[in-house]
Amino acid sequence: MEFVKGGVCAAKGFKASGIHCGIRKNKTKKDLALIVSDVKASAAAVYTSNLVKGAPIYVTKENIADGTARAVICNSGNANTCNSNGVEIAKAMCDLVQESTDVAASDVVVASTGVIGQPLDITPIKDGMAELVCALNYNGSEDAANAIMTTDTVLKEIAVEFTLSGKKCTMGGIAKGSGMIHPNLATMLVFITTDAAVSPEMLNKALKNDVADTFNMVSVDGDTSTNDMVCVLANGLAGNAEITAEGEDFDAFCKALGEVNSYLCREIAKDGEGATKLLECKVFSASEKAIARTVAKSVVCSSLVKAAMFGADANWGRILCAIGYSGADVDINKIDVSFKSEAGEIPVCKNGMGIDFSEEIAKEILLKDEIQVLIDLNSGDEFAVARGCDLTYDYVKINGDYRT
Amino acid sequence: MEFVKGGVCAAKGFKASGIHCGIRKNKTKKDLALIVSDVKASAAAVYTSNLVKGAPIYVTKENIADGTARAVICNSGNANTCNSNGVEIAKAMCDLVQESTDVAASDVVVASTGVIGQPLDITPIKDGMAELVCALNYNGSEDAANAIMTTDTVLKEIAVEFTLSGKKCTMGGIAKGSGMIHPNLATMLVFITTDAAVSPEMLNKALKNDVADTFNMVSVDGDTSTNDMVCVLANGLAGNAEITAEGEDFDAFCKALGEVNSYLCREIAKDGEGATKLLECKVFSASEKAIARTVAKSVVCSSLVKAAMFGADANWGRILCAIGYSGADVDINKIDVSFKSEAGEIPVCKNGMGIDFSEEIAKEILLKDEIQVLIDLNSGDEFAVARGCDLTYDYVKINGDYRT
Repeated sequence: MEFVKGGVCAAKGFKASGIHCGIRKNKTKKDLALIVSDVKASAAAVYTSNLVKGAPIYVTKENIADGTARAVICNSGNANTCNSNGVEIAKAMCDLVQESTDVAASDVVVASTGVIGQPLDITPIKDGMAELVCALNYNGSEDAANAIMTTDTVLKEIAVEFTLSGKKCTMGGIAKGSGMIHPNLATMLVFITTDAAVSPEMLNKALKNDVADTFNMVSVDGDTSTNDMVCVLANGLAGNAEITAEGEDFDAFCKALGEVNSYLCREIAKDGEGATKLLECKVFSASEKAIARTVAKSVVCSSLVKAAMFGADANWGRILCAIGYSGADVDINKIDVSFKSEAGEIPVCKNGMGIDFSEEIAKEILLKDEIQVLIDLNSGDEFAVARGCDLTYDYVKINGDYRT
Repeated sequence: MEFVKGGVCAAKGFKASGIHCGIRKNKTKKDLALIVSDVKASAAAVYTSNLVKGAPIYVTKENIADGTARAVICNSGNANTCNSNGVEIAKAMCDLVQESTDVAASDVVVASTGVIGQPLDITPIKDGMAELVCALNYNGSEDAANAIMTTDTVLKEIAVEFTLSGKKCTMGGIAKGSGMIHPNLATMLVFITTDAAVSPEMLNKALKNDVADTFNMVSVDGDTSTNDMVCVLANGLAGNAEITAEGEDFDAFCKALGEVNSYLCREIAKDGEGATKLLECKVFSASEKAIARTVAKSVVCSSLVKAAMFGADANWGRILCAIGYSGADVDINKIDVSFKSEAGEIPVCKNGMGIDFSEEIAKEILLKDEIQVLIDLNSGDEFAVARGCDLTYDYVKINGDYRT
């Protein structure tokens, strides 16, 4: 597998664009993105588990119920959620794509991100469609990635090349993250495109399997958004024999998808609102996969752990504490904990008890911007990793007055 | 019922004291508290649900297994948790009480709060016992309340007078809260004394019933501490006929307990680490009590809601969002939301959708230091209230480097 440039346009036959249409007041910030496949693609998506769902999610679900789609339209600046005309507006966005391109409205994935509960005005989108469609091009990934960003500070895109039965395939993705990010998705929008040929059923299976280990294991602030969506389009233009069952090709496809998703997860966690560092909690030797996941998530979600990481404070008691209230059935007396970063690794707790360690070395390790908390449960063979970030002044600042 | 002075010494026959013995470096901060009843008392306690439990909890459980106790010893500055000699030290603290008073070690409730995973040195406690016992007096509540504080900024004590079958009874309490506070208790230590005569069984019943509505509905930061304890001693010196069954007296006793606990909950929430305001979420018209509780807790625990309250931002979408991911089975389309404070009340959401409201009036309401979020589920008759606080720069500051 090789990393390549081009993001969501790296795979054959995908164009993208992003413009400022006026949903946002700030004219320098793009707010409308479009991705179009030259041909119909297999489509699969996973959505927020929040009972309050953005209107676009209902419309997207309906449009990809047949397992196919050709385009993605996404705006930032307004979530189109908790508005009485939400579904109507989301459908109107699909209609606008149909009117301006050769894509049927029923083949459009629609997504929105931003403030909840303020009606989304269709006018700027309508007025911007000509420009948006005109700007579509095979190098448009960055523009699209820019347009879906909200409080993200870093553009998130990735692409990889891989081989399926001798055919070179490409897969790329763009993502927006930042706040309201929590297991079972978040205001996390991820659009992935690939030219591999995969049946809708197998695409769906690959995606569902993968998110359990990737996007469902990311938390920025414990708040699960109403609008989350991870969507994959696979247009088959690579010319490989279509994947219709499990096997070597399916495994290779899943591996590529895992690579793309893991990268985007790390990027989302690292760029969490106000974050200064990436926090990865790796849980080893759990008796069950579910226990490993629960423990890892509880640690990266703990406000006290997150604040300690911000302060580069090796307060491992908070990690034990977070394991203890996670609800996972673990033997506390078997737990070992270490901190690790590019500056080294330091054990701080053995068999659930504190051990002597150098606070200076620990500080040096924790001052780096990518921190791993390694937890060994010494109870089995299962592993999980959860990703999050530190809790900082800036998180509070960003969220103390987001709307103004 | 009448509010009176005296805290944990308001009831007949309870002395208390608090001194600086040297567990903490700061000599102006008391770190050791003692409460002693003149006679043996019925005792009941509830403890943290965290799997990682402080050593004192194991010792206290053992000591009050017979339903009686006479004294409480509590230190701040060190949680005596995750240390290999923890139980030994906690028992030594009880032994020291026995050696310096006429209270048997097996009648001592022991508690510790502070850093986890650093051995607790018994020496300063041993050296301080003479002073601590000498300082015991019937007006010592404030000293004891001071000694159990950690990052608390406000001393928390309360007392009420009530009547049981014509006899005047008194109940008082002290508490420490601040951080690592979450449903199912927290580093929340609450000691309540009363001169009412109640059997251990009924005392236990009254306490368990009450905490479900009070201390289990408080969250400062979502982290459940390892050392939480709410303990009640009832020494019977008021001379009422002992409560041994449900009935009018039991109800009156529960009402007094509810009053004391609700007050301390509000004080703990309001004085959450870094908090600038009290946040109370009241959920009305739920179809089940459990749903009302789940919804109320989810809202006061949401980092995004808490940050919005800090910024006095009427971002009600985050409240809907927190209800939506709470896991409670609610009909989103029936939900009404209002904000309320001493400055007034303003509806912001009706039937799950945004409604027009004056941002200025909302701001005025949210700038007050006690905010109520009123949620009407329009689905039944059940009610619950959860208490928390806003998320502020200072929370991050306090927890970014707590140990140094």
